[in-house]
Amino acid sequence: MTIGAGGTLRTLRERKPLVHQITNYVVMNETANATLAIGALPVMAHAREEVEEMTGIASALVLNIGTLSPAWVEAMLAAGRAAGSRGIPVVLDPVGAGATAYRTETARRLLEAVPVTVLRGNPGEVATLVGTEAEVRGVESMGAGLEPAELARRAARQLGLVASVTGAVDHVSDGERVLAVSNGHALLAAVTGTGCISSALTGCFLAAKPGDPFAAAAEALAALGVAAEDAAAGAAGPGTFHAGLYDALHALDPATLDLRVRIEEL
Amino acid sequence: MTIGAGGTLRTLRERKPLVHQITNYVVMNETANATLAIGALPVMAHAREEVEEMTGIASALVLNIGTLSPAWVEAMLAAGRAAGSRGIPVVLDPVGAGATAYRTETARRLLEAVPVTVLRGNPGEVATLVGTEAEVRGVESMGAGLEPAELARRAARQLGLVASVTGAVDHVSDGERVLAVSNGHALLAAVTGTGCISSALTGCFLAAKPGDPFAAAAEALAALGVAAEDAAAGAAGPGTFHAGLYDALHALDPATLDLRVRIEEL
Amino acid sequence: MTIGAGGTLRTLRERKPLVHQITNYVVMNETANATLAIGALPVMAHAREEVEEMTGIASALVLNIGTLSPAWVEAMLAAGRAAGSRGIPVVLDPVGAGATAYRTETARRLLEAVPVTVLRGNPGEVATLVGTEAEVRGVESMGAGLEPAELARRAARQLGLVASVTGAVDHVSDGERVLAVSNGHALLAAVTGTGCISSALTGCFLAAKPGDPFAAAAEALAALGVAAEDAAAGAAGPGTFHAGLYDALHALDPATLDLRVRIEEL
Repeated sequence: MTIGAGGTLRTLRERKPLVHQITNYVVMNETANATLAIGALPVMAHAREEVEEMTGIASALVLNIGTLSPAWVEAMLAAGRAAGSRGIPVVLDPVGAGATAYRTETARRLLEAVPVTVLRGNPGEVATLVGTEAEVRGVESMGAGLEPAELARRAARQLGLVASVTGAVDHVSDGERVLAVSNGHALLAAVTGTGCISSALTGCFLAAKPGDPFAAAAEALAALGVAAEDAAAGAAGPGTFHAGLYDALHALDPATLDLRVRIEEL
Repeated sequence: MTIGAGGTLRTLRERKPLVHQITNYVVMNETANATLAIGALPVMAHAREEVEEMTGIASALVLNIGTLSPAWVEAMLAAGRAAGSRGIPVVLDPVGAGATAYRTETARRLLEAVPVTVLRGNPGEVATLVGTEAEVRGVESMGAGLEPAELARRAARQLGLVASVTGAVDHVSDGERVLAVSNGHALLAAVTGTGCISSALTGCFLAAKPGDPFAAAAEALAALGVAAEDAAAGAAGPGTFHAGLYDALHALDPATLDLRVRIEEL
Repeated sequence: MTIGAGGTLRTLRERKPLVHQITNYVVMNETANATLAIGALPVMAHAREEVEEMTGIASALVLNIGTLSPAWVEAMLAAGRAAGSRGIPVVLDPVGAGATAYRTETARRLLEAVPVTVLRGNPGEVATLVGTEAEVRGVESMGAGLEPAELARRAARQLGLVASVTGAVDHVSDGERVLAVSNGHALLAAVTGTGCISSALTGCFLAAKPGDPFAAAAEALAALGVAAEDAAAGAAGPGTFHAGLYDALHALDPATLDLRVRIEEL
């Protein structure tokens, strides 16, 4: 594995991959803008009539259950299966798993039916899905019984995927190795949808580096974290930070990004 | 009744109450960000499969009919009844009541089936619901036959709730008393969803002060109004005002808020 | 035909027309804010139960298939027919036509059933609908076989409407004449929904100048382009550009707008 967020970002901007997102109503505009700002092309499509065709022309699929309902779940299953049969990488963001039975069951159903490449969630959501102690309030993680590094490792091993557990420090594991990503800023938690943005960017980086989802997942979080550090420097609060985050994602420089990335193998 | 927006804000930030919002597509991101910025936790969930469970873990429920459809109305009814049976305060925002029969009838249906704590609307919407002269164009109030203070009082009395009628000056009534809130700024009317934000913040304040919805409703409007005054000071127009509004909500200081609040009992 | 974006903007701000928009989830907030910023009133309503009534009180209808599904398509058809029977101008934005069969067929169905006044799309989408060579990736135009001026002319003639084909330079045609609009800025392409905003503003300008959709369509694009130039001047990237765009739309001055508009008849 080679970690190189700058190189992956350069590839991403050259290829401008299409990233199909079936996501929640709250953050669609935000994840689309983050996808554009990093240099990829977003497309949102959720109708059962077109999801398989749309996934088929995309380079990555992002499934996010933040405002789910039965028709959307069916679309996610169909798109996920289409991605699986075509070898297109899939990111699952299990927003609010642990908060209601419907969310927990839907996340489990997607994990069973779809070959998820990267599971990106907060500690409470991921702990819920591996069946360990977890507390989720709405869409907010209130805690998990395991340390995040161990949680990521266990989730990766148990679910057979790359687990990306975000928090003050993010932890990404392929079941053996664990990477800790310590870029970021506290203001990310004051803006809704920044977790969803991290899932969308994970899809963008997977599209650029499909052969190494473990590295790509960590690099995506590091890139978002570096952008958040830049945005926070010029922000007066969460509103101007939010606007500045797209500026900063857009301004990320592949040539110097690796100097700022703080990814450590534990 | 004690008016003390600063004290309520302090409680809110300590408790970080979860506020369940079933709201319209246009403003979901905005009301979620306003909820986070003031210090509470938003959750959006509208599936019939989970609304009762989600409401059950929340400290307030906000129902907003801005982009309604039959499945969403059923979810609002179910969530509203769940809130009622558990004593969770409910805010209803009857967006566009008076503009179409469907909106007027849905708002009436919700008022009949759900124990609404605070009705937050513009003069045309509230006048429609009390059956007096009203003009609503789309989601904009073009006028009401009654003076807003009298309209708030009549709505509160007739519907058995706290009525919160917003405009250049806001009027909140419990059917006897009327509070006039004169904080705010004209730019609020140049950004979509600021009415919906006022309903979301009303939910946040109710969660922090459930025993006194009359005071909480006025305090929420005053807090938003103070933040709008701050945001307008640094804005070049509605776009930068909008971004600055979240900064200003986040920066509201419980220790000094009461000095700036302009709430008057009529 | 008289081109006079400033005069149309003045009329628009005096009349504050209601513009009914049935649009996609990604951009609803953005098109509503752009509509407000330019001086009109937006209303979003998509329920079959109310679309005809809502369209009936509006001065223009904007249909946008960016995140379509069967129930929304039925609502668009019903609203479009209501607009037709009442003489209300209709804008169609065929987002992603050419990317999936469902989008292409839905756009065609709407064009057949609804008297569309202005078709506003990118080259790939419009070329798809006139049956010439086109490449659409997600919602992004990758190219069209015809030059944009010729494409606009052919679409207008073949479909019997005003065709508004946007790009680095926009081309608007009534089937005979072609106007080239060269206002704008590259940052428009870095923010999602700016195409949808151009469709919403086209609806606003049609509402103010219903007798001349050819001129109105070009003026709307020019007004957005001038605002984009102003917003770009103060922006550090796509996030601050996006916030500044609403400031700039709001600040457009009818008295001086025509001096800055770059509309040329080819």
